[in-house]
Amino acid sequence: MRNKGENSSCELPESNGKTKHNKNRHYRFEENFRWKGVRVQEYKSEGHNWHGIARQTLIGAGGESTKFHLRYFEIEPDGYSSFEKHKHEHVVIGVRGRGRAKINRRNIDLNFMDVLYIKPNEPHRLYNPFNEPFGFMCIVNAKRDRPEQILIGTKGQRHIGTK
Amino acid sequence: MRNKGENSSCELPESNGKTKHNKNRHYRFEENFRWKGVRVQEYKSEGHNWHGIARQTLIGAGGESTKFHLRYFEIEPDGYSSFEKHKHEHVVIGVRGRGRAKINRRNIDLNFMDVLYIKPNEPHRLYNPFNEPFGFMCIVNAKRDRPEQILIGTKGQRHIGTK
Repeated sequence: MRNKGENSSCELPESNGKTKHNKNRHYRFEENFRWKGVRVQEYKSEGHNWHGIARQTLIGAGGESTKFHLRYFEIEPDGYSSFEKHKHEHVVIGVRGRGRAKINRRNIDLNFMDVLYIKPNEPHRLYNPFNEPFGFMCIVNAKRDRPEQILIGTKGQRHIGTK
Repeated sequence: MRNKGENSSCELPESNGKTKHNKNRHYRFEENFRWKGVRVQEYKSEGHNWHGIARQTLIGAGGESTKFHLRYFEIEPDGYSSFEKHKHEHVVIGVRGRGRAKINRRNIDLNFMDVLYIKPNEPHRLYNPFNEPFGFMCIVNAKRDRPEQILIGTKGQRHIGTK
C-alpha cells in the first residue's frame, strides 16, 4: 500500500501539485463527454500494454478529502487498458457506448449504466471491440497499491479488437 | 465518526447482516433504472423532512471492502431529500432526468452526467422540481458520520417543489 498522494508509476498524478482545499464543485457536463474545468489526460504515463484510452479525473485532483477518486475513462474503437492486477478494487459504471471487461478469463459486456465490481487481485482489462467510443466511470480508493502488469501470449490477446 | 458497518439512524443498513466476501459482481442495468439483483429501498428509515425518494445500494451491501459506497437515488417529481449536514463528503452524478441541489443557500441545476462535489459540513438537499424522475449516483466514504438534520422555516422551504 502506498501513501495517499503518491501514485503508481503507471498512473498520472491525481493532483496538480498545488495545495488545494475542499470547496464545493460543480463539473458541468459538456459535449462529447467532457466536463467544464476538467482536462483530458493520457491514461498512463508509461507502458505499452494499452492503447487508445484517455482519462479525466473528476474527483481526486481538486483537494477533495474523499477516501475515493472518481475518474472517467474513454476507450476508442480497438483500444484497451492494461491487463493488470492489484489489491485495490475497481467499481466501473458504463456511461458512453458499450465495451467489454476481461476479468481473469471471463469477458463481460458492459452497456449503459451496468455496474461492475472487480475484486482485489483479479487480473482485468477494459477494452472496446465496437465501433463507437466506450466511456466509463471508474471509482477507486484514494490510497491504493501499484498495479502489476500481466504479460499474456498471443493466444490470450486474441480477444482484443475482436469485433 | 462511527465504525464501518454501523449506520446512522437515518440510513438503512448497507449490509443485509449476512457475512459476505469479495467476489466479482456485474449488476446489469434493466428497464426503469433498476439493476438486476439490487433491491429498491426506502431512502431513510425515519424522519419526516424528506419525500418521494428511494435508494438502491449498488456497492457497499455485497461484502465489498472498498472505502466507499455507491448508491443510486431517485426522486419523484416534487420530492426532496433531507436538508442536512455532516462531515463526510458527497459526490453526485446526474444520470436520469434532471434535478436540483440546494447547497447552503445556493441552488444548482443538475443534468445528465453533471458531477457535484459537496464539501464537509455543508448544508445540502437534493430535490426534483421537474415533471420526470430525477436519478443520481451518490458516492460516499464507507466510514461516515451521522447526518445532522437542519430545520428551516417556511420561507426557506419555498424552493421545494417550485416548478
